[in-house]
Amino acid sequence: MDETGLHRQAANHWPISPLSFLQRTAQVYPEYRAVVHGPHSMTWGELDVSARRLAAGLMARGIGKGDVVAILSPNTPAFVQAAFGVPLTGAVLLTLNTRLDPGTLGYCLEHGEAKMVLVDAELLPRLHDALGHMHYRPSVVRIDDPLGPSGGDADALFPDLFAADPAPHLLPDDEWQSFSLSYTSGTTGRPKGVVYSHRGVAMTAISNALDWALPHHPRYLWTLPMFHCMGWCFPYTIAMTAGANVCLRAVSADAMEAAFRDHDVSHFCGAPIVMQMAIEAAERLGGKSVKMMTAAAPPPAPVIQRAEAAGIHVTHVYGLTETYGPCVVSAWKQVWDGEDDDSRAKRKARQGVAYALQDRISVRDPDTMEETPRDGETIGEIMISGNIVMKGYLKDPAATETAFRGGMFHTGDLAVRHTDGYVEIKDRAKDIIISGGENISSIELEDALYAHPAVASAAVVAIPDEKWGERPCAFVELSADAEADEDELKAFVAGRVAGYKKLARIIFEPLPKTSTGKVQKFALRERARSL
Amino acid sequence: MDETGLHRQAANHWPISPLSFLQRTAQVYPEYRAVVHGPHSMTWGELDVSARRLAAGLMARGIGKGDVVAILSPNTPAFVQAAFGVPLTGAVLLTLNTRLDPGTLGYCLEHGEAKMVLVDAELLPRLHDALGHMHYRPSVVRIDDPLGPSGGDADALFPDLFAADPAPHLLPDDEWQSFSLSYTSGTTGRPKGVVYSHRGVAMTAISNALDWALPHHPRYLWTLPMFHCMGWCFPYTIAMTAGANVCLRAVSADAMEAAFRDHDVSHFCGAPIVMQMAIEAAERLGGKSVKMMTAAAPPPAPVIQRAEAAGIHVTHVYGLTETYGPCVVSAWKQVWDGEDDDSRAKRKARQGVAYALQDRISVRDPDTMEETPRDGETIGEIMISGNIVMKGYLKDPAATETAFRGGMFHTGDLAVRHTDGYVEIKDRAKDIIISGGENISSIELEDALYAHPAVASAAVVAIPDEKWGERPCAFVELSADAEADEDELKAFVAGRVAGYKKLARIIFEPLPKTSTGKVQKFALRERARSL
Repeated sequence: MDETGLHRQAANHWPISPLSFLQRTAQVYPEYRAVVHGPHSMTWGELDVSARRLAAGLMARGIGKGDVVAILSPNTPAFVQAAFGVPLTGAVLLTLNTRLDPGTLGYCLEHGEAKMVLVDAELLPRLHDALGHMHYRPSVVRIDDPLGPSGGDADALFPDLFAADPAPHLLPDDEWQSFSLSYTSGTTGRPKGVVYSHRGVAMTAISNALDWALPHHPRYLWTLPMFHCMGWCFPYTIAMTAGANVCLRAVSADAMEAAFRDHDVSHFCGAPIVMQMAIEAAERLGGKSVKMMTAAAPPPAPVIQRAEAAGIHVTHVYGLTETYGPCVVSAWKQVWDGEDDDSRAKRKARQGVAYALQDRISVRDPDTMEETPRDGETIGEIMISGNIVMKGYLKDPAATETAFRGGMFHTGDLAVRHTDGYVEIKDRAKDIIISGGENISSIELEDALYAHPAVASAAVVAIPDEKWGERPCAFVELSADAEADEDELKAFVAGRVAGYKKLARIIFEPLPKTSTGKVQKFALRERARSL
Repeated sequence: MDETGLHRQAANHWPISPLSFLQRTAQVYPEYRAVVHGPHSMTWGELDVSARRLAAGLMARGIGKGDVVAILSPNTPAFVQAAFGVPLTGAVLLTLNTRLDPGTLGYCLEHGEAKMVLVDAELLPRLHDALGHMHYRPSVVRIDDPLGPSGGDADALFPDLFAADPAPHLLPDDEWQSFSLSYTSGTTGRPKGVVYSHRGVAMTAISNALDWALPHHPRYLWTLPMFHCMGWCFPYTIAMTAGANVCLRAVSADAMEAAFRDHDVSHFCGAPIVMQMAIEAAERLGGKSVKMMTAAAPPPAPVIQRAEAAGIHVTHVYGLTETYGPCVVSAWKQVWDGEDDDSRAKRKARQGVAYALQDRISVRDPDTMEETPRDGETIGEIMISGNIVMKGYLKDPAATETAFRGGMFHTGDLAVRHTDGYVEIKDRAKDIIISGGENISSIELEDALYAHPAVASAAVVAIPDEKWGERPCAFVELSADAEADEDELKAFVAGRVAGYKKLARIIFEPLPKTSTGKVQKFALRERARSL
């Protein structure tokens, strides 16, 4: 076919960007509620103008394409404003985990070369500690959320950033342009900076709506931290569907009950611990019809039954920071409705199949890249490719190349593939402990233990925990003649890691080892489960 | 930010293509129904294999990237197979309007340089007539649909094309690669070949699901011709949502009643005339909860009321061949539910706002490209830009450049913009008559009239028609001393144009003209409405 004149041009080819969703929804539904925060709220028209005023103010301060602006904040309206205002300048939004210890926070800021940090007043003291670990000082902008604490040392206040005149609706020149930056939990060493593109965030945001079959105007409760994988890209899903972002500074059954009651929440996401709170909240209200998307280890059958009895419809998803949050869904088939509870729970517990807009999920031998048979038994590594995979790791081309070897992203998660093509995780290659939705590195805890003079050998694995899903449990061999008890070692470790990583339990006994001297973690996991 | 190593690669950047939807749905929902045709049906697994067998067979016959394969067929399973099988080879699918006269059909085939035509046996005689107008002979492949006539001269039979081994799932190297070709109705001269890209078809298919808030597994009735703008890209929307394509060779109230009853249809699209049939079908069934997307002139308030009373929920959309079908939707707001019938009908009659994934619709002065004020009064031309705009016109760079001047696609439709941003068409710059969902060029009919020796002056405009929406009405001045009556001229024109373009009425009276001698069509339209 003669393609003369059929080239990409302004009329027929636009960068795919989540920023378009804000513009479109602000134009069509300016009077619809965009953000709700207790008694405060903002319409899409207001959010749009404020995000563009923020962008104009940031640009006036020299922020632009290629710069990194960080945010350290719970789920507040300011975070939603930043989620649009920062990328509008062409800059990259670094979303910091609010639970990190100051040392790791400082590492992420420095590695990301953040020029500015937007920080909620509650987290300002932690940020100042983090700055102490850094070799330069980014500009600190304090957010005084109306429902949080206020005050503290800062270079500027958040409202100062808002210029009088909003910036125009700017789109990137190229949809591959970097949009945001999220650090991994650093299970195998230092956290890695995962870079998202405009195209990837938009495709994920669209996928959330398609794979969850979202209606127009969902009322979305922010039980998922916005800093997690850029909030799984849900700020942009909610913009696209002209929904409402119902903010929450802290997640609890009480807060969820109030949001269910006052804002008629229709959808929310979160870890299994959030499901427990949601069940409690829904039960107190005599039931609440609401849909939940949950990742990480799926809850056991009785919990799902209780959730469903309370009106909570659960969709199980899977993903990683490297895949913009979830990109795999345990797609439900109607024919399974008739099965017994256990069977249904087992089906729902599987990680599932690729999102409709993701290219591919497969289970492969990481050495040969051969796909494993669909027998529900043969274990291989989950590999993913498509538009919902990160651009790569910031300033780490070697790690990027390793992660993408063979043309697919290597998740490090070990799984089987069932005869129907659904993937089910059997083990985590990296021995991650997932506690309250947060990844905890066993290696970091082992390092902390080894810092104690009495510790000869240490290995940390997950033990099941009703409230948190999992918590870390250490197995320790003491040095000859050395003495230390459980409380002493727990306190020692607690002084070196973030609060949520504290050891739940320490067992003093010989560690099982392979012939080459490697600790057999699978044996310890079994032992921990039997405790 | 240092972007070293953050480049597009196989793991993180895949061409956006509607062909991915077939692959994913065939893998996840292989046992779900993909196509229903009276008593016949096909699952997604079967459709996937058959489309890939078709692709393999076409490739074995030398069809590949850059080639054009045409289809001339009603809405049958074979069309659905071709909608996937032809693009899988890298070739471009030319979807021919089944109502075209042989001369125009031949023109489209020859202009598109089609190598092969897949033709339903019912349309084979017409194709043979069309071949008589051509300077070369494409290969003719006959489709004997089980619910249609069979037999007739052809080079091969459709089943012969299916190779034993299916082709692999192939994606284009580049998402900008051409996907399909649809000819305009040629209102201002020869039909123009509108070229679609993989990216554009995929974005439209996704948009259909988002803007209509489609559930998973819709049961979609094919009342819209699949040849119209590649079926508004719905074959791919239905693939993405793992729905069922319920085929229909011919649309009638009886056929719709049967489909509503036997296949529990949930969604369908079509022109206002289809709505009339749907109402009749739904009323006969004592009501049927179903959703309709309708384009072209929206039906008057009483018809919408009757539709809603019968359970039919109507969404009004707008688009052109150049925009992959609809890309503008009259997005409904709940607050309007409380208004009276007339007010609601007026709101619904507006063309509306851009699809969530379309970049922009605006109303502008075509000379200055300035946007018109949002006053509901100032008329300008509707202009559209974004990913849901054609690549351009085939072998017509000049027309492409004209259509895209100023960086937006010029629709030729004249409209106002209301204070809330919604667009409403006030006139058609090209004087198109839309009859039963088909565009009829007034110029073509005027030319046919002028061919009669008795005709001195002629002008054709639309008159409202309860059944067809609009039909063409001619105003004629006879030459001095010449004689001709209405029946004679009607028969004369009917011999020169396709059946659906026949003149409804001819009025013999002096034509109102401007000072420069141009016929005042707006005056004639008013006159026609008063007849």
